[in-house]
Amino acid sequence: MRLRPTNCHRSANDGGSLRFVKLRVPEVVVLFLLGAAASLVGDHSHVVTGTTVYFTDAVPFIWSSPIWFPAMVGAATVSLAELRLHLPNPRTSVTARQGLAGIAAVVGTYVTTALVHSAPPVPSTTLIVAMAVITWCALGDTPSVVCGVLAAVIGPIVEIVLVKIGVFAYNADCDGLFGVGPWLVPLYFAFGVVVAMLGEIAARDRQTERVAV
Amino acid sequence: MRLRPTNCHRSANDGGSLRFVKLRVPEVVVLFLLGAAASLVGDHSHVVTGTTVYFTDAVPFIWSSPIWFPAMVGAATVSLAELRLHLPNPRTSVTARQGLAGIAAVVGTYVTTALVHSAPPVPSTTLIVAMAVITWCALGDTPSVVCGVLAAVIGPIVEIVLVKIGVFAYNADCDGLFGVGPWLVPLYFAFGVVVAMLGEIAARDRQTERVAV
Amino acid sequence: MRLRPTNCHRSANDGGSLRFVKLRVPEVVVLFLLGAAASLVGDHSHVVTGTTVYFTDAVPFIWSSPIWFPAMVGAATVSLAELRLHLPNPRTSVTARQGLAGIAAVVGTYVTTALVHSAPPVPSTTLIVAMAVITWCALGDTPSVVCGVLAAVIGPIVEIVLVKIGVFAYNADCDGLFGVGPWLVPLYFAFGVVVAMLGEIAARDRQTERVAV
Repeated sequence: MRLRPTNCHRSANDGGSLRFVKLRVPEVVVLFLLGAAASLVGDHSHVVTGTTVYFTDAVPFIWSSPIWFPAMVGAATVSLAELRLHLPNPRTSVTARQGLAGIAAVVGTYVTTALVHSAPPVPSTTLIVAMAVITWCALGDTPSVVCGVLAAVIGPIVEIVLVKIGVFAYNADCDGLFGVGPWLVPLYFAFGVVVAMLGEIAARDRQTERVAV
Repeated sequence: MRLRPTNCHRSANDGGSLRFVKLRVPEVVVLFLLGAAASLVGDHSHVVTGTTVYFTDAVPFIWSSPIWFPAMVGAATVSLAELRLHLPNPRTSVTARQGLAGIAAVVGTYVTTALVHSAPPVPSTTLIVAMAVITWCALGDTPSVVCGVLAAVIGPIVEIVLVKIGVFAYNADCDGLFGVGPWLVPLYFAFGVVVAMLGEIAARDRQTERVAV
Repeated sequence: MRLRPTNCHRSANDGGSLRFVKLRVPEVVVLFLLGAAASLVGDHSHVVTGTTVYFTDAVPFIWSSPIWFPAMVGAATVSLAELRLHLPNPRTSVTARQGLAGIAAVVGTYVTTALVHSAPPVPSTTLIVAMAVITWCALGDTPSVVCGVLAAVIGPIVEIVLVKIGVFAYNADCDGLFGVGPWLVPLYFAFGVVVAMLGEIAARDRQTERVAV
């Protein structure tokens, strides 16, 4: 292993730090499909348990979801992962194993909201908050909080708008946050934190290679 | 960083190891309020799910709890954290992040007891035992077992006495331990283990400063 | 600590790597009893929640289980632990604390299947998959996947056969995998992964002693 000037492998179209978009096309595709797939499992769980119900048939459905739902979650996954790489100090020490654990944690938290949707809001929301906090404590860093908070604000707002215009509804037993489940906030937070880490994992190898080859 | 004699910063009223009370006033206040706040969330979860019901209106209530309930839990939090600092080898390596994870684990376990209270006692209690054991494995050390066992013995006994004198009751579906929920034992154990760690975190910095400045 | 030739402590009947059976008799006994005990707790949880029902009274029952059930799980525990020691690179760094966490994770996952058995299959199975994946991420290594997959294939097949011949049945709300619960697959996977680690822990000390004394 020889230390080399960091620009030795830099060319006009490679993944150097001067690029405006940090993720490469294959990574964007994988992150988009991963987010979309996870959202289909979670959304089906919400629909099949009666946590949510769709009132639209204007577009084709994939499994239990109108096609724009996995598309939006996939796009959010890509955006938050890209955002993380523009925040300070993306970690190069995060592993694929941690990425897998993070995906399992978010998907597990997602389906838990479906399983507890009929419980009173304080215990159910507190449980999801606890799961999200533990996910951050185990896998997150400080900048990932930015991704988590952004997701926790924008995600529920988008869903509240969609409920207000009548696209879908949450069950009356879990619609306490302006028509949506209050546990959406910690769920989206955990999503943002883990996706930030997935961005770090995706870009990890070429960040290392810029320092030592 | 220079190594200095350990008594350089020692004066009559500082936090040195000769003090009888190890925790300082601000730490006592924070631990008390933290324990009280967590107990209010958990107790509300028990009341709102019908896990427990109060038969008293002799004192003011805060949210769903008579005022002495958060006071007792807050005092227990302070006492167990103080106790840990009198046991051998308080760790100086525990982090605020671990403290946050521990709080989330205990609160998450607490509300889980509310969510599963109507299940048969063996699966529900085994789940809480598993959560408590994992909490200890992730965050505890050997002396913290003392705090955990003390909490697991005294906590349920106090609750059993309060049930016997008619202050409150557990639902018939989860009153198998002399009138209280059998999962109180692992829940209080996890509480004691995590509070012991919070004591270590509170006292960590001045323990370090006595060795190296 | 002196480095010594690895065969210094090797004799005809010790636990060296030339032995065909790696586990010693006391370890076999402990692993068998551990697997049997855990299976009794889990099986009782299944029976008491109505997840499963036995149609046999041909043999004596222990608690809620016919005596061959804990015997089979105990034998599987011993076999998978032994198998791990024949796979590459058994770890010597795994601790008793990790073993305890693994046991708690598997037993906690087992009783969770009982608690969620009446939920729709996708959220309940996804939750158990997430728990199993996190268990592997926290405690497993690559060869443990072999033990996990073997358990995840053979365990459900054995149960499917027993259902087909009428020994027991799963509740209609969770019999979607040829008559058994689909979450048996991730549950058995987690079981195999953790038992592999228990094998490593059992054999750890004498593996170390062969290298350095």
